[in-house]
Amino acid sequence: MQPYLHTVQYYETDQMHITHHSNYIRWMEEARVAFLDGLGWGYDRLEAMGLISPVTAVHANYYRPSRFHEVIAITVRLKSYKGVRLVLDYEMRNHETDVLVCSGTSEHCFLDGNGRVLRLTRACPELDAALQALLP
Amino acid sequence: MQPYLHTVQYYETDQMHITHHSNYIRWMEEARVAFLDGLGWGYDRLEAMGLISPVTAVHANYYRPSRFHEVIAITVRLKSYKGVRLVLDYEMRNHETDVLVCSGTSEHCFLDGNGRVLRLTRACPELDAALQALLP
Amino acid sequence: MQPYLHTVQYYETDQMHITHHSNYIRWMEEARVAFLDGLGWGYDRLEAMGLISPVTAVHANYYRPSRFHEVIAITVRLKSYKGVRLVLDYEMRNHETDVLVCSGTSEHCFLDGNGRVLRLTRACPELDAALQALLP
Amino acid sequence: MQPYLHTVQYYETDQMHITHHSNYIRWMEEARVAFLDGLGWGYDRLEAMGLISPVTAVHANYYRPSRFHEVIAITVRLKSYKGVRLVLDYEMRNHETDVLVCSGTSEHCFLDGNGRVLRLTRACPELDAALQALLP
Repeated sequence: MQPYLHTVQYYETDQMHITHHSNYIRWMEEARVAFLDGLGWGYDRLEAMGLISPVTAVHANYYRPSRFHEVIAITVRLKSYKGVRLVLDYEMRNHETDVLVCSGTSEHCFLDGNGRVLRLTRACPELDAALQALLP
Repeated sequence: MQPYLHTVQYYETDQMHITHHSNYIRWMEEARVAFLDGLGWGYDRLEAMGLISPVTAVHANYYRPSRFHEVIAITVRLKSYKGVRLVLDYEMRNHETDVLVCSGTSEHCFLDGNGRVLRLTRACPELDAALQALLP
Repeated sequence: MQPYLHTVQYYETDQMHITHHSNYIRWMEEARVAFLDGLGWGYDRLEAMGLISPVTAVHANYYRPSRFHEVIAITVRLKSYKGVRLVLDYEMRNHETDVLVCSGTSEHCFLDGNGRVLRLTRACPELDAALQALLP
Repeated sequence: MQPYLHTVQYYETDQMHITHHSNYIRWMEEARVAFLDGLGWGYDRLEAMGLISPVTAVHANYYRPSRFHEVIAITVRLKSYKGVRLVLDYEMRNHETDVLVCSGTSEHCFLDGNGRVLRLTRACPELDAALQALLP
């Protein structure tokens, strides 16, 4: 899958003259949405099925600052998945120089409309199969 | 009513070393929420009654930059209201020096759960009376 | 010039299930940056010349809500300019249906590094000419 | 030290009807600013000394959603510090019920104006002593 591209916006900078660190967490979400779309399992389809997939944890390591107007290429990979907990891995690189600026992970579970945790093997075998197929 | 106080956060600054202009629109919302709470008509009460009050327009004039850690005192006043459209006025001043940094207005209507525009005189006479009482 | 495209992000929605109104002010900035780049007068070039162009006012009128994943096409036009104050006009439409969701304006002045207001005719005749050429 | 209080804003909610997860990273910064102020080492004092303290990593675990208008009490503790790398710990609880909604950590280094990593024992013994005194 092609990396997701995000251009750093002026409103994402802070007075240190770099991207504010909280925005990388938002870019991870942008890239995740595109990743699930690419799989054929966009948020719309999940929500139409009554599936909600909240974030249960995030990590980010900041290696280099990024700056206004820089294009960041974000690669998403499935790190682990066993039916209940999904962990995704992110690499964010300067699109021109390929320098790593940030890496991260996000963890997710799946809930039904009443907030109960679902096991996808039972609740949605097709999505389960699509995720299993991506395991390293 | 006491002005609403907002302290400028680091993540609200941009690389010009001042508050990014979009944040004042958010502070107007913070002050509006406190203003309606003070009236006894908080968002929770409105939403519990099935009333939604979206923003239909905003204006802001920026007079002076504000900076990280500055405390901004925001005064909200009812500018006009005739049963359907509500216009609020905002003054944002440096809390210490009283210097005006920004002024603004926001316009609102009232909708029911199906998105139909409501006339408060009929749909919620109590809120209508509370707003009428504030007219200059 | 082609309209600037912005896809509504999940983190831009609010609990009304629509785009939070403050984000349109940020999209106007995104489109303005692309507009100035297209003119050959990107922020980088301005800042390299010691020119700062802060926002002195914004207006927005909200016609229709927009939602997660919607693509918004933003058209920027020069509304007025006489050497000191620049006013830009924005139209934001659903890219697929062409329905107008929001219109807005932003006003700007030009400052030097010491915060003094500049008249572009003198301070930067090339940018002045580029802007004059766009006047309706 | 008293916990830092943050009231969830409307613009911090998303269409899942809860606080968007990226905002907790921003609240950690709000609480950290207050924590350093309380120590007598506010950002202003650091920046006046030419010291910059960027975030090099963040973690967050989300236990319970928080909602609009909820007051979150944030406790900051020094987790580790050995002269170069500072790790802070955060607990975010519903202020009324004391239920844990989120925990997190942030990691920081100290840089001079040229972006070189500093050892505080040498570069700023007073701040070093203030931090050493907080070690568990």
